[in-house]
Amino acid sequence: MPLRRQPPPAALLTSPEDTEAQFYEALQSGDIERLMSVWGDDEEIACVHPGGPRLVGAAAIRSSFEKIFATGGVPVTPEQVHRLHTMTTAVHHLAERITIHTAEGTQTAWVLATNVYLKTEQGWRLVVHHASPGSVGEPPPVMGEPPSLLH
Amino acid sequence: MPLRRQPPPAALLTSPEDTEAQFYEALQSGDIERLMSVWGDDEEIACVHPGGPRLVGAAAIRSSFEKIFATGGVPVTPEQVHRLHTMTTAVHHLAERITIHTAEGTQTAWVLATNVYLKTEQGWRLVVHHASPGSVGEPPPVMGEPPSLLH
Repeated sequence: MPLRRQPPPAALLTSPEDTEAQFYEALQSGDIERLMSVWGDDEEIACVHPGGPRLVGAAAIRSSFEKIFATGGVPVTPEQVHRLHTMTTAVHHLAERITIHTAEGTQTAWVLATNVYLKTEQGWRLVVHHASPGSVGEPPPVMGEPPSLLH
Repeated sequence: MPLRRQPPPAALLTSPEDTEAQFYEALQSGDIERLMSVWGDDEEIACVHPGGPRLVGAAAIRSSFEKIFATGGVPVTPEQVHRLHTMTTAVHHLAERITIHTAEGTQTAWVLATNVYLKTEQGWRLVVHHASPGSVGEPPPVMGEPPSLLH
């Protein structure tokens, strides 16, 4: 039986969590091809970077990330992820922790993000990434969250 | 045959456009009950006001809009609406025009918003409203949009 080549990991996208993990891994490593592979095949996919304009469509989104990756990957990790799932849609809202090492020490900036994933024939795909400035230092509060929340 | 009382308009929500229209009408009129009636019945519904924290759940969202409405409705109209629809999900991203009349004249501020609607047994319901500061004066550019776009 011949060896069969495994499909590349980016093609799996078997769950919203898988797609989200690949999105942030691609951001961290500055891998533009992997980053673009998680987006849906729709001309209305949209992206808002913190404080930035609205980017619509793959070409505009790709161009913005190419500029960001010109200085390398982004040291970002998703935290405080809240999920709202149906059979075909996943809405995640979360805080992105961005860690910056400077001569004065390590600084942490937080970004609030909404990520929307749709289930397609090509797996779960990102269709919206909307990010806006959160806070610096302490993580941004989540209003309405029970104080004992463990997830 | 007895007269039957009509259900209130807010209970219809027959399309994402209907739900979105009611959301902005409620914002304009400062009608907290109508505003809350368009939201989905899920504890993970979420709202981010421009520059604000993450609000999760109906109680936190209601409280934030009650504070906003304490000084009246919000002179906001949705424009430049982009839509990404499936059978059960609608993702809208748009620019909110906020018109402020001052002694120095009329000023226009723009907010970038992502609204996500899910089709439920109670009609199309809002589950996420994520808004972030756009621009003042001129409408914010939409990068990637064809120059001749008419919608």
